Amino acid sequence: MRAFQLIEPGVAELRDVDVPSPGPGEVLVKVAGAGVCHSDLHILHAPAWRPLPMTIGHEISGHVAELGQGVQGWDIGTPVLGYLCWGCGQCRTCAAGYENYCERYGRGITPGPGLGFQGCMAEYVVFPARFLVALGDLLDPIDAAPLTDAALTPWHAVNLAREHLGASSTAVVIGVGGLGHLGVQILAATTGARVIAVDLDPAKLEHARQLGAEEVITSDEEAAAAVLELTRGRGAEAVFDFVGAGPTLSLAAEVIAPFGRIVVVGLAAGRLDFAADGPPRGLPWGASVVKPYGGTRADLHDLLRLTQRGGLKVTVERHPLEDARKVLELLEAGRVPGRAVLVPLSTVDRWVDPM
Amino acid sequence: MRAFQLIEPGVAELRDVDVPSPGPGEVLVKVAGAGVCHSDLHILHAPAWRPLPMTIGHEISGHVAELGQGVQGWDIGTPVLGYLCWGCGQCRTCAAGYENYCERYGRGITPGPGLGFQGCMAEYVVFPARFLVALGDLLDPIDAAPLTDAALTPWHAVNLAREHLGASSTAVVIGVGGLGHLGVQILAATTGARVIAVDLDPAKLEHARQLGAEEVITSDEEAAAAVLELTRGRGAEAVFDFVGAGPTLSLAAEVIAPFGRIVVVGLAAGRLDFAADGPPRGLPWGASVVKPYGGTRADLHDLLRLTQRGGLKVTVERHPLEDARKVLELLEAGRVPGRAVLVPLSTVDRWVDPM
Amino acid sequence: MRAFQLIEPGVAELRDVDVPSPGPGEVLVKVAGAGVCHSDLHILHAPAWRPLPMTIGHEISGHVAELGQGVQGWDIGTPVLGYLCWGCGQCRTCAAGYENYCERYGRGITPGPGLGFQGCMAEYVVFPARFLVALGDLLDPIDAAPLTDAALTPWHAVNLAREHLGASSTAVVIGVGGLGHLGVQILAATTGARVIAVDLDPAKLEHARQLGAEEVITSDEEAAAAVLELTRGRGAEAVFDFVGAGPTLSLAAEVIAPFGRIVVVGLAAGRLDFAADGPPRGLPWGASVVKPYGGTRADLHDLLRLTQRGGLKVTVERHPLEDARKVLELLEAGRVPGRAVLVPLSTVDRWVDPM
Amino acid sequence: MRAFQLIEPGVAELRDVDVPSPGPGEVLVKVAGAGVCHSDLHILHAPAWRPLPMTIGHEISGHVAELGQGVQGWDIGTPVLGYLCWGCGQCRTCAAGYENYCERYGRGITPGPGLGFQGCMAEYVVFPARFLVALGDLLDPIDAAPLTDAALTPWHAVNLAREHLGASSTAVVIGVGGLGHLGVQILAATTGARVIAVDLDPAKLEHARQLGAEEVITSDEEAAAAVLELTRGRGAEAVFDFVGAGPTLSLAAEVIAPFGRIVVVGLAAGRLDFAADGPPRGLPWGASVVKPYGGTRADLHDLLRLTQRGGLKVTVERHPLEDARKVLELLEAGRVPGRAVLVPLSTVDRWVDPM
Repeated sequence: MRAFQLIEPGVAELRDVDVPSPGPGEVLVKVAGAGVCHSDLHILHAPAWRPLPMTIGHEISGHVAELGQGVQGWDIGTPVLGYLCWGCGQCRTCAAGYENYCERYGRGITPGPGLGFQGCMAEYVVFPARFLVALGDLLDPIDAAPLTDAALTPWHAVNLAREHLGASSTAVVIGVGGLGHLGVQILAATTGARVIAVDLDPAKLEHARQLGAEEVITSDEEAAAAVLELTRGRGAEAVFDFVGAGPTLSLAAEVIAPFGRIVVVGLAAGRLDFAADGPPRGLPWGASVVKPYGGTRADLHDLLRLTQRGGLKVTVERHPLEDARKVLELLEAGRVPGRAVLVPLSTVDRWVDPM
Repeated sequence: MRAFQLIEPGVAELRDVDVPSPGPGEVLVKVAGAGVCHSDLHILHAPAWRPLPMTIGHEISGHVAELGQGVQGWDIGTPVLGYLCWGCGQCRTCAAGYENYCERYGRGITPGPGLGFQGCMAEYVVFPARFLVALGDLLDPIDAAPLTDAALTPWHAVNLAREHLGASSTAVVIGVGGLGHLGVQILAATTGARVIAVDLDPAKLEHARQLGAEEVITSDEEAAAAVLELTRGRGAEAVFDFVGAGPTLSLAAEVIAPFGRIVVVGLAAGRLDFAADGPPRGLPWGASVVKPYGGTRADLHDLLRLTQRGGLKVTVERHPLEDARKVLELLEAGRVPGRAVLVPLSTVDRWVDPM
Repeated sequence: MRAFQLIEPGVAELRDVDVPSPGPGEVLVKVAGAGVCHSDLHILHAPAWRPLPMTIGHEISGHVAELGQGVQGWDIGTPVLGYLCWGCGQCRTCAAGYENYCERYGRGITPGPGLGFQGCMAEYVVFPARFLVALGDLLDPIDAAPLTDAALTPWHAVNLAREHLGASSTAVVIGVGGLGHLGVQILAATTGARVIAVDLDPAKLEHARQLGAEEVITSDEEAAAAVLELTRGRGAEAVFDFVGAGPTLSLAAEVIAPFGRIVVVGLAAGRLDFAADGPPRGLPWGASVVKPYGGTRADLHDLLRLTQRGGLKVTVERHPLEDARKVLELLEAGRVPGRAVLVPLSTVDRWVDPM
Repeated sequence: MRAFQLIEPGVAELRDVDVPSPGPGEVLVKVAGAGVCHSDLHILHAPAWRPLPMTIGHEISGHVAELGQGVQGWDIGTPVLGYLCWGCGQCRTCAAGYENYCERYGRGITPGPGLGFQGCMAEYVVFPARFLVALGDLLDPIDAAPLTDAALTPWHAVNLAREHLGASSTAVVIGVGGLGHLGVQILAATTGARVIAVDLDPAKLEHARQLGAEEVITSDEEAAAAVLELTRGRGAEAVFDFVGAGPTLSLAAEVIAPFGRIVVVGLAAGRLDFAADGPPRGLPWGASVVKPYGGTRADLHDLLRLTQRGGLKVTVERHPLEDARKVLELLEAGRVPGRAVLVPLSTVDRWVDPM
């Protein structure tokens, strides 16, 4: 089969490899769509991944193609989503449902497909059965692929601030891109909070308004003042920074309300200065800051249900798997609106709708 | 009456002033004990307080001495504690019980006695009736004074991390001083978490062990490694930094577990670097950091009940009010073990037990 | 002034009484609208209320007319809502924001206006200042009166089940009347749960659909089967019974999912059999049942904010205060669609819009 | 091997059967101890269990004896506990960690060993690997068996009321038997609440006091009045009924505080009348009642950790497996103090300490 593999740090290419076999408790999944994520760019250039060659791609939809020994409850052909945080399932944290923070990996990252295991920019991928979630027949499998990360991550981010998101609260979303445009929808659909979207791009702000933002603000040097004015000088009870650069983190710190929560989702390598002696240095009293990773399997069930009911829409752009490298280049250049999904054309068959 | 007043930044002295009169809804309280707090040192030297002269002192026990118009439910002579965060009582945040983060004060601090209002290092102080909590007759009023801040602050700090404090969790307490020795007791008495105490002073560590710490660690360059070893490399689910200096914040960051919470209580002006791109820079994934302020009135009720039942003991050292300046100097020099409480000797009477 | 007063059990009439004077900490409110509630019918016939004569009416909007001594922060003419659970404000439960369950009243009900104090079916009513909430100028005061009970009660009911109301959850609303039609909106606006409305009346079901119910079911002997079919045999994670009669409680018990929550809001005197030995007798495992009372002041702030932002609409029918008795008779006869609000016409002035 | 099997309803006997083989993902466990539970008596006489013959027993400790295909992370000889709620692991509820309320079983009970699968009153039992929890080497495996149900059930019961268990709260434990004596310890070790124990037996009350109950009350017609007096007429914020008979449920209803929670653990077939119209009929306002089932895997991790640290002690009485029938008879006659654990003597070997 065809697979887009990382050969060595910085070098990735489409290769022909054997179709893998599912072991006991595992399932072979025929890939319908493999989402392309900013973190794939990090992975491409990071020095540390094992094994190599490693097929990259951690955002996946597909269909059950073959069952390993002992797997029960799945039928061949069933459309599925793949959950990306492959926790051990045994530790106390996994048992409590937080496999994204699995204890087996100490203080490190919980691995998954394309993140230490063979990933899903390929025609087939092997998944432990318990990391599959039935997709149902209401959604197109290809369009659904980004639910597993692009939607899961903001969903979990919102959950980490949910106690701050009552009907008297204001939530600021900084960056209305691939994840942020989903964050706006999740906040509008599942909380009573007022949503303010902040972005540089007027088109994205208009989009945010259509998706449920009650107010939109251009991301410039007046942005903090604008948020404070809309909140009578108090600031917002929750701020979701989907960029994570120095300036966006500064904005978050300037507009977070006392006792509010900043959730830093973006990976743009900025730093937020947390001072121990309280304001005017550092954050207002009672404010907190957190950096989430991925989401839980229960989160994936929840957002899938909401999407099936029409409450969440991902903007998707389809590309053939063969164009993986080109799509990554487009992404790096900031030229992918919404989410790009790779489709292994050679395997289009009865399960995958023609494009 | 005698009152220890801030005259101008850096200048405070014992003065003779009129006994204040309680207005409608207010109560005159005869001071039994006025705790001396590190933050009084900050107040002494801060440029900004109004009004001046301002009697300092925000940690208070006493007895009801006179009722303003419309005050019901209080009898003259009833022993009381005074709650220090004088929220407006009307905003949504106060209505929800979080007067310590009152919306009336925007992004600033919620004021209180000795914190923008006339304080309690005096023979009498006026309190809005709703900020009094009945002390009952099980505790000595003088010894109880530190409950209102020295115990309230760690209590609230623990509450902000309570969801991380199950029986499988480890809690690290950095700094076993005036607040930290209460933090250890609160954790031991109200959570199932294992407590690890960290301090420079072997005597304080031994004290911590007696108060409920299961493990104690000397605060040196091996401390982080020791915590990680005790937690199988994972780190602690909660870290309470009662110092707030650069090295203690670094220790907190090194030992916090993924999905754990750092609560920064101390005011020693350190800074914690929160990086947007996750480990190895910055905190582990899912970890959060928060800087609490004071506590709620419900917190004060709770810790008072626990203290009445024998679950919380404050180490108190009594001094006459006349020695206020000297006690502050001792505190600044680090020579006050436990908590110093000032007693207005000239007003010792039937309500105040002789020392 | 004119006031509709309970003279003795079962006897109420419009009488001329003196305009009351606000004491210290109190505010005289000129009534804009006084909502008429089913519980007013209970009060009319209950033997126990004191004092008598007592002006009934506990659902109120109005304008600040006079300030008692010591009241700060309110201007004459400011439109306000009145909060109905007059807790003591001092006990631990009030301090935590749950004044609707105040400890001062032991195991009894928390009183309020028209509920042990002089109520608001009158031209003026006196309120303790802290039970007023500023209405703002976005809403018509008369239309806003029902927010203080007809909306507050379902809001609090939803809060008591909020942990069961994720995006994978189903919420069943039984009874789409005065409170139930607000319950549907609250669920749709502030949670991700799917809402199923159940009622006898097709018009009310159609209304429920417009207000956000995704499914509607006629309340007949097939209703339980219909809910189970829509939930794949599992049942609903939350059921709100706005009727409280024997048959609706039975329906609730038949359709509640394991680990779900039944919230019994209606007062129709039914009984739910809670068996200690689990299914098939009694509820499924893990299910709970709760009977809420009123709501909190923070709840009132929250629902007011949502209403100001357009997320909650009350169907209101205005009547002159003089028709109080007639409106109660219509209500008893089940002939009031939505919520009836009494308006003291004789005092219509610059604050009250002409009808 | 020897196994105590249910042959048909009401008929159980010790039989010789083949040692089972673990399938893919499964583990053969050599039984160290099999706890004998009141619910085994129900199972013995219930008409519905399948398959038959079914080895009964759901409370188990043991050692890993053989690994099925694909099982990783377990070594032969490792001491383990077995978790009894065999949820599907795939549904949203299981994914969130609540396998005891698994959706696969609709509104029915989640099965487990001795509860629809072959149980553990035998020399060996097969477990899906993910339902094993490593015991560690601090506890004697035989004594640890009751942790998996006798301790798990009260632990989960306490968790369902944890928000009601602050330091100002009172918790009443009715019935200080096999589960109740653990409930007292769990409350004392992991919450700040005051514990009141209620029982008929003075020896059990004395035991409760040693285990952490601050007050004890004889279970007679004065018991409700005694609890109300200790709570100033308010009642207790949480009541745990470990009996579940008519009189104990009545006591629970009489002493629960407004906004409190009754947790009904016992199976003695009583009924609690939940009236829709509030007090004086039915419960006080805001009170709730819940009937828990089992516990979660995270609960099992938590209570194991607490036990390893010395915070929880189970009173255990050892019997040879051969005496299974006799022990059940003793249990039915109320003549088993603490918890009886069956030990398969024929297989005592290097892993099981001699008795």
